[in-house]
Amino acid sequence: MENIAILGSTGSIGQSTFGVVDRLKHRFSVVGLAAGRNTRLLQEQIEKYKPKIVSLERKEEAEELRRKCDVSSLRITFGQDGAEEVASFEESDIVISAITGINGLRPTVASIKAGKKVALANKESMVVAGPLIKALARKSGSQIIPVDSEHSGVFQCLAKERKEFVKRVVLTASGGPFFRTALSEMKKKTVEEALKHPRWEMGKKVTIDSATLMNKGLELIEARWFFDLQPKQLEILIHPQSIVHSLVEMNDGSVLAQPSPTDMKIPIQYALTYPERENGLLPSLDLSKIKALEFFEVDQNKFPLVSLSRRALEEGDSFPVALNAANEVVVGDFLKNRLKFLDISDVIKSALNGHKKRKIESLEDIFEVDWETRAETLRLLKERF
Amino acid sequence: MENIAILGSTGSIGQSTFGVVDRLKHRFSVVGLAAGRNTRLLQEQIEKYKPKIVSLERKEEAEELRRKCDVSSLRITFGQDGAEEVASFEESDIVISAITGINGLRPTVASIKAGKKVALANKESMVVAGPLIKALARKSGSQIIPVDSEHSGVFQCLAKERKEFVKRVVLTASGGPFFRTALSEMKKKTVEEALKHPRWEMGKKVTIDSATLMNKGLELIEARWFFDLQPKQLEILIHPQSIVHSLVEMNDGSVLAQPSPTDMKIPIQYALTYPERENGLLPSLDLSKIKALEFFEVDQNKFPLVSLSRRALEEGDSFPVALNAANEVVVGDFLKNRLKFLDISDVIKSALNGHKKRKIESLEDIFEVDWETRAETLRLLKERF
Repeated sequence: MENIAILGSTGSIGQSTFGVVDRLKHRFSVVGLAAGRNTRLLQEQIEKYKPKIVSLERKEEAEELRRKCDVSSLRITFGQDGAEEVASFEESDIVISAITGINGLRPTVASIKAGKKVALANKESMVVAGPLIKALARKSGSQIIPVDSEHSGVFQCLAKERKEFVKRVVLTASGGPFFRTALSEMKKKTVEEALKHPRWEMGKKVTIDSATLMNKGLELIEARWFFDLQPKQLEILIHPQSIVHSLVEMNDGSVLAQPSPTDMKIPIQYALTYPERENGLLPSLDLSKIKALEFFEVDQNKFPLVSLSRRALEEGDSFPVALNAANEVVVGDFLKNRLKFLDISDVIKSALNGHKKRKIESLEDIFEVDWETRAETLRLLKERF
Repeated sequence: MENIAILGSTGSIGQSTFGVVDRLKHRFSVVGLAAGRNTRLLQEQIEKYKPKIVSLERKEEAEELRRKCDVSSLRITFGQDGAEEVASFEESDIVISAITGINGLRPTVASIKAGKKVALANKESMVVAGPLIKALARKSGSQIIPVDSEHSGVFQCLAKERKEFVKRVVLTASGGPFFRTALSEMKKKTVEEALKHPRWEMGKKVTIDSATLMNKGLELIEARWFFDLQPKQLEILIHPQSIVHSLVEMNDGSVLAQPSPTDMKIPIQYALTYPERENGLLPSLDLSKIKALEFFEVDQNKFPLVSLSRRALEEGDSFPVALNAANEVVVGDFLKNRLKFLDISDVIKSALNGHKKRKIESLEDIFEVDWETRAETLRLLKERF
């Protein structure tokens, strides 16, 4: 039996993880959960899975839960410290790191330091702290398996291929809800429209990131560190059907690709069971029903965050941290209906233009750049709206 | 330096192999060649590559070559014995087995017995003698790498995947020149039309096999033995663009696929350099230029040889031998304009319907079934036309 801790248990990835665990009860047991503020859902999860430790974002909800859920064998904690405690909980073997945004960084690092097998869905950890995380994992022996479908695909394609023979890696993007929308129409797009993703069901933040293609920009940076590739080896291709998640081109012209049905339970299960596999429950991919798989280049005019991400990828050091911080702030504001869709990229661009590159040598360096960029982005937003 | 012997050096695969060797002179040297009757081309190859042994199909051409090509260090031989001598030539490390049809069987077996690394393009060897060949390879330590693009794709996808987790393997077929032709139109099709393959440049025999989809039927049987799969794990999908050569579905729903530009030099080079890779010279696969990859189920009415092949696959034993023999005879006749396109499948079907299954325990058993089926097929052809 392998014991699992789920960081972000009430989010989209967290819920899909339970879908996988439910089918693989013979193999997995849930021992720890970290959630945000959804006490009601967390309580249901506690009743069903009987973990030994849970954490909530704030003290208020933790105390509410303590009143409602009087189980002496359950430790209830809260805050970043609480999430870190779940992340490094002694009895867990595998940690699903699926808290959204930079808030997932400290818990991810805690799991890695504790030598856990980490199924990494929190891409921001790798974006802002790739080299630090890889170094920590080497030291502790922690194994990090990607959960993003694109990176899971690359991971599977690379299998026993030698890195020296890899020419390039292509991550595909569905293109989001506005792939076929004219640039002139995009400025009118509302939060509701941006949240209607054509292929994937995901959390709100990542759904907006998919509409702007920032998600793919972050994934480029994530892939750089995950697979130790050079920026010029990384590319994006629009693939509206979201069936082929990624492609790896070898130096001899052979390509390996990873298609599968569009359901996060597949890469989640792969990460949990790796290096083994377990039967899935979904119907097989039937390409004859899908008929055509299409591929297009990215329209850089419509999706300026792709080239901005590439700039951050190439600059390195503190740039990815600033990019992510500005994006988190701006998308948060967009979700509150405070700005228009095309303002998202404008503001992030301004924030990044003002950024001065610094070396990142510790988590503290990351949080410093993160906070400074947030403050600067808030200032830009205030100035503008 | 690795020494190569090329069986079928004047054929399509043979010529593509030189295209690969020319670019990888630092690594490969050609020491042996076996050809058919094309003395002129063989002579050019001798002058350029300076092999130590060559073989021709018949004594006449061998003697002609001896007169023209007076090199004391070159051994010139002929016939099946000659081809076997090239195949097991002591100084070679790698053998490209690319003689067409059952004629490639004995030389392939000779290479395997000699413990060579065998790049197998002669699919008939695996079709008629799969279990025998695999047993011989285990005994001699010979490594067999597939050259067919579909099987090369499966080989690469399977990489370090464990067989117990493989759910099914899909080989794609371009559909050949008549994929979009109505059944009623197919009976009028001529040899010239059948030889116009939309995607691949290949020898005549295999081009006709592609038009009837028999090629894919043979490849199903080949894959059964190459990858030790059950018949029900093997499927065919029409993919007119011929970019994705094969797909491997794992039990968890993940699929691994192998696309690449449509050029045999890629799988040939892969087989030669395996387990390493070398830079290729072709432009990268650009999916955004191809736009759409389409997939369709096989129309069994138009391509009855697919279900006939599946029957031979499932029956096993002598059935694949009979299927291949009947096909070789009938296609030979079709290439001589002696019958119509739709007659090909009719005659093969009749031949197979009359076949009585026998155990195959030796090469002699195979040749016996082969000859009997050829005789019966010739009788059927005579009776009919």
